[in-house]
Amino acid sequence: MEDLLTRLRAGLPAEAVLTDPDVTASYAHDMASFCHAGTPAVVVLPSTVEHVRHIMRTATASRVPVVPQGARTGLSGAANASDGCIVLSLTKMDRILEIDPVDRIAVVEPGVVNAALSRAVGEHGLYYPPDPSSWEMCTIGGNIGTASGGLCCVKYGVTAEYVLGLDVVLADGRLLSTGRRTAKGVAGYDLTRLFVGSEGTLGVVVRAVLALRPRPPRQLVLAAEFPSAAAACDAVCAVMERGHTPSLLELMDRTTVRAVNRLGRMGLPESTEALLLAAFDTPDPAADLAAVGELCTAAGATRVVPAEDAAESEMLLRARRMSLTALEAVKSATMIDDVCVPRSRLAAMLDGTAAIAAKHGLTIGVCAHAGDGNTHPVVCFDHTDPDESRRARESFDEIMALGLELGGTITGEHGVGVLKKEWLARELGPVGVELQRGIKRTFDPLGLLNPGKLF
Amino acid sequence: MEDLLTRLRAGLPAEAVLTDPDVTASYAHDMASFCHAGTPAVVVLPSTVEHVRHIMRTATASRVPVVPQGARTGLSGAANASDGCIVLSLTKMDRILEIDPVDRIAVVEPGVVNAALSRAVGEHGLYYPPDPSSWEMCTIGGNIGTASGGLCCVKYGVTAEYVLGLDVVLADGRLLSTGRRTAKGVAGYDLTRLFVGSEGTLGVVVRAVLALRPRPPRQLVLAAEFPSAAAACDAVCAVMERGHTPSLLELMDRTTVRAVNRLGRMGLPESTEALLLAAFDTPDPAADLAAVGELCTAAGATRVVPAEDAAESEMLLRARRMSLTALEAVKSATMIDDVCVPRSRLAAMLDGTAAIAAKHGLTIGVCAHAGDGNTHPVVCFDHTDPDESRRARESFDEIMALGLELGGTITGEHGVGVLKKEWLARELGPVGVELQRGIKRTFDPLGLLNPGKLF
Ligand SMILES: Cc1cc2nc3c(=O)[nH]c(=O)nc-3n(C[C@H](O)[C@H](O)[C@H](O)COP(=O)(O)OP(=O)(O)OC[C@H]3O[C@@H](n4cnc5c(N)ncnc54)[C@H](O)[C@@H]3O)c2cc1C
Ligand SMILES: Cc1cc2nc3c(=O)[nH]c(=O)nc-3n(C[C@H](O)[C@H](O)[C@H](O)COP(=O)(O)OP(=O)(O)OC[C@H]3O[C@@H](n4cnc5c(N)ncnc54)[C@H](O)[C@@H]3O)c2cc1C
Repeated sequence: MEDLLTRLRAGLPAEAVLTDPDVTASYAHDMASFCHAGTPAVVVLPSTVEHVRHIMRTATASRVPVVPQGARTGLSGAANASDGCIVLSLTKMDRILEIDPVDRIAVVEPGVVNAALSRAVGEHGLYYPPDPSSWEMCTIGGNIGTASGGLCCVKYGVTAEYVLGLDVVLADGRLLSTGRRTAKGVAGYDLTRLFVGSEGTLGVVVRAVLALRPRPPRQLVLAAEFPSAAAACDAVCAVMERGHTPSLLELMDRTTVRAVNRLGRMGLPESTEALLLAAFDTPDPAADLAAVGELCTAAGATRVVPAEDAAESEMLLRARRMSLTALEAVKSATMIDDVCVPRSRLAAMLDGTAAIAAKHGLTIGVCAHAGDGNTHPVVCFDHTDPDESRRARESFDEIMALGLELGGTITGEHGVGVLKKEWLARELGPVGVELQRGIKRTFDPLGLLNPGKLF
Repeated sequence: MEDLLTRLRAGLPAEAVLTDPDVTASYAHDMASFCHAGTPAVVVLPSTVEHVRHIMRTATASRVPVVPQGARTGLSGAANASDGCIVLSLTKMDRILEIDPVDRIAVVEPGVVNAALSRAVGEHGLYYPPDPSSWEMCTIGGNIGTASGGLCCVKYGVTAEYVLGLDVVLADGRLLSTGRRTAKGVAGYDLTRLFVGSEGTLGVVVRAVLALRPRPPRQLVLAAEFPSAAAACDAVCAVMERGHTPSLLELMDRTTVRAVNRLGRMGLPESTEALLLAAFDTPDPAADLAAVGELCTAAGATRVVPAEDAAESEMLLRARRMSLTALEAVKSATMIDDVCVPRSRLAAMLDGTAAIAAKHGLTIGVCAHAGDGNTHPVVCFDHTDPDESRRARESFDEIMALGLELGGTITGEHGVGVLKKEWLARELGPVGVELQRGIKRTFDPLGLLNPGKLF
C-alpha cells in the first residue's frame, strides 16, 4: 500500500493523491442505492493525460484495480469503488479545448460538465444535444461511459451518435486514438463506438471529439392529460406513426406528478392518470403542437394545454427533469428501472408495471422518455422493512423480465454497472457474453479496469 | 475439394452450389480495379439462415476461408475472392421481413437491394436515408459491411446510424443476435456497431433491424458555378457555419462535369471550374436555397441556378450520381480515392490534389460529398502505359498522405478492403492495429472470414 502511494506520487502533484479515509469514502459510490461499494485505497485526481498514463502504468505494475469516475451521478453502481482500488476521478480534467463552428465539433476533456459544454457551444450558435436530466452535474466522460440519453433523444439520438473520436489511456498506460474529427470515416473496426457505453471497463477516456449541430429554434411544449397510461401511450404511437418529429415526448404518471408537485410546488394537475409532454423545435412549433394536440384528444386526452411561451415551456421541462429525484423522496428508498421497449409495446409495459405494483402492494411511479419507449419505473419502498424490501427487489426484477418479454432491453440509458449484471447475461445470451468477455480481455488482459462491472 | 462440395451439398439445395469455373469466376471480384482477386473453389447461394450456418460450420470443419458477398459493387476489393475460398453470396436472401411505421423500423435480409428497401418503406410514408450512388444495385448487407454513405449523409448520417440490431452467423456457425429493435439500448458493448464496416471479417450478417425516419418533403436542388474549387469550398464552409442543414451538398469539378456530359448528355455547364449542388428538404426549401445562393455568390459563384421543379432537381442528382461511372470512362483505367477531411480543410485537399495531378501530369477528376469533407479524387490513366500506371499509383497514395496530413481519414465510406491495407495501418498506428487484430481473433480465431482484407 505504501509502495503504491509512493509510486503514484512519483508522477503526480501532492494534492492529486487523496488518502484521508473520510475523503476517499465520499468517492466510494454513485447515485444508485443498494449497489455494493468497496473501500478505495486511494483517490487520484489527474489533471493531464500524462498523469492518467502514469496512474495506469502504476496500476498495471502493482496489479491494483482502477475505477474511473466522472461526477458519480450514475444510477447502476458502475462508478462504485472496489476494495483496495484506485479511484481515478476525471473531474479536474475539465477543459473545453476547441469549439469549431465550420467543422461543427467540440474537443473536450472528460471532466467537462454536460451543461457547461451545452452553454459554451450555445454561444457559438451550436447545440450539443445529449441532455440527461442530471446535466448540471454529470460529465462528458461519464456520459460516454454510460452512453447516456436524455429528453431530446427522440429527435436527436443519444450520446453515441455524437462521439466522433476519442483519446483513451489503456489499462497498461498506452495511449490509443480512435475515430476522427471528420464527419465520416470507416477506417477499420469502430473502436470509438466500442468505448461508448463500456462503463470504464476498456480504457480511460481522456479526450473526446464531439459532433455538434446548429442550434435549433427554441422549443415549445404542450401538456396533455390522460385518463389512463394506455391512452397516453396510444397518443405516443399515433404521433410517431403520423410522421411527426417532436423534440421531446415524455410521460409522467400520477405518482410522478404528485411527487414532483410535492418537491417543487409545480402545480401540475394531480387528477390526471398520465401527463404527456410533447415539444417541437421546428420553424412553426405551434402548428405542430396543434396537430399533436388533436391526436392526443383523439386518443382520449381530457385536457390539452399548449405552453403560452418559452418560460412556461421551461417550467414543464424542469418538472419532468425533476421526476427521478422527486420519486426518490416518496419513501425511504427507491430502485430505479430503465427498461426500453419498442414504442408499440409501451402501453403493455406500463399496464404490466402497474400489475406488478398491485401484486406486490407497492408504489411504483413511472416517468418515461415515451417517444423512445424508454420507461423509468421507480419502485418506492421502506428499506427498514425487510419484507417490503424483498418485494421491491422482486418487482424490480419482474419489470426487467417484462421488458425482455416485450422485445425490449433491460437498460435504455442507465447502464448495467453492478445493478443488472445477471440481467445483462440474460439479455445477451451465452454467445453474446462470451464475445463481450473476449473483447474485454483484448483491451484489459489483467482485468484491472473497473472489475466486477457489466459481467 | 470433392469432400468440401459433398459436405456443402449435404445442407444446401443443389442449385445453391455453383462450381462451373466460368460462373464462379464471375464472382471473383467487386468493382475496384487493380485489386488482386483469387479463384474461388465454389460459390454458394444460401436462401435461409440455416443454410448460412451450415456453410460456416462446413468451412470451419474443413478450414476453408469464406468471402461474404453482396452485389459486388464495392470499390476496395473487400468482396474479392481468395484462392480456394467459398464465395458466400447473400443475394438470394432478399426478403423485407417487416416494416413497422409505429416503431419506425424495417427488418430485412442482407440481400435486399438498397433502392428496393427505399421504395418499399416509401410506400408507408417512411424513409431509409443511406443512399450510396450505387443504390439500384448494392445490398443492405454490403452497405453494412462497408458502413456506406451517400448523398444524404450531410443531413442524415451514414449506414451506421441506421443499424439497430443484427443477426450474425459467426465463423463457427453459431448464431449471434446483437442490439435491439428499440429506439435506445445500452446493454453491454456495442457489438452491432462493431459489425458495421467490418467488411465481412467478423461474421455473416443474415438479418438486420434498421431504423427509419418519416419521409421528408421532396428536396429542391440548386446548382452554383464557381471559378475555382477553393471558392466552392469556401461556400461549403459558409453554408455550414451559418447553421444551414442542407439535405445534400455536393461538388463536381470541371473534369467530372465534362465526363458526366459525355456519358449522359446532361448539359451541365462545362466552363465552370467547380459545380456545387445544394438541396433542402425543409418545409420552405426555396427560402433556404435563396439564403445558400447568397452565400455562394458572396464566395464568388459566377452563376446560381435553383432548379425549377422536382424533375429538374432529380436530373441534377442523376448527374451527380453518375460521376464515378463517368470518370471511369475518361481513360482506360481509374483508381478511385475516398479521402475525408474536416470540411474546413476541403479547399486545401482539393488544391493539393490538383497539385498532385499537375506534378504527375495526370488527369484527376474530383467529385465530393463536400458537406462532409468526403472527396473522391479519381485518378484517370492508361493502364497499358507502365510509366503512367506507376504515376497513377503514386498519385493515389499521395492523395491519402495529404488527407492524413490535413487531419482526415483514408476512407470516408468505401472501406479498406485489399486496396488500402498498408494505409489503414498508417492511419490507426500500432496500438490501434494490435487491438483491431485482437478483436478479429475474438470473433474468428481461425481467420477464416474474408482473410487478407483490412489488415
Ligand atoms: C437526477 C438524475 C437524473 C438522471 N437522468 C438521466 C437521464 O435522463 N439519462 C441518462 O442517460 N442518465 C441519467 N442519469 C444517470 C447519470 O447521470 C448518467 O449515467 C451520466 O452519464 C453519468 O455521468 P457521471 O459523470 O456522473 O459518471 P459516473 O457516474 O461517475 O460514471 C459513469 C460510468 O462511466 C465511467 N466513466 C466516467 N468517466 C470516465 C472516463 N473518463 N473514461 C472511462 N470511463 C468513465 C465510470 O467508470 C462509470 O462506469 C440521471 C442521474 C440522476 C442522479
Ligand atoms: C457507381 C458506384 C457508386 C458508388 N457510390 C457509393 C457511395 O456514394 N457511397 C458509398 O459508400 N459507396 C459507394 N459505392 C461503393 C459500394 O456500392 C458500396 O460499398 C456498397 O455498400 C457495397 O454493397 P454491395 O452489396 O455491392 O457489397 P459487396 O461489394 O458485395 O461487399 C462489400 C463488403 O461487405 C461485405 N459483405 C457483403 N454482404 C455481407 C453480409 N451479409 N455479411 C457480412 N459482410 C458482408 C463483403 O465481404 C465486403 O467486405 C459505389 C460503387 C459504385 C460502383
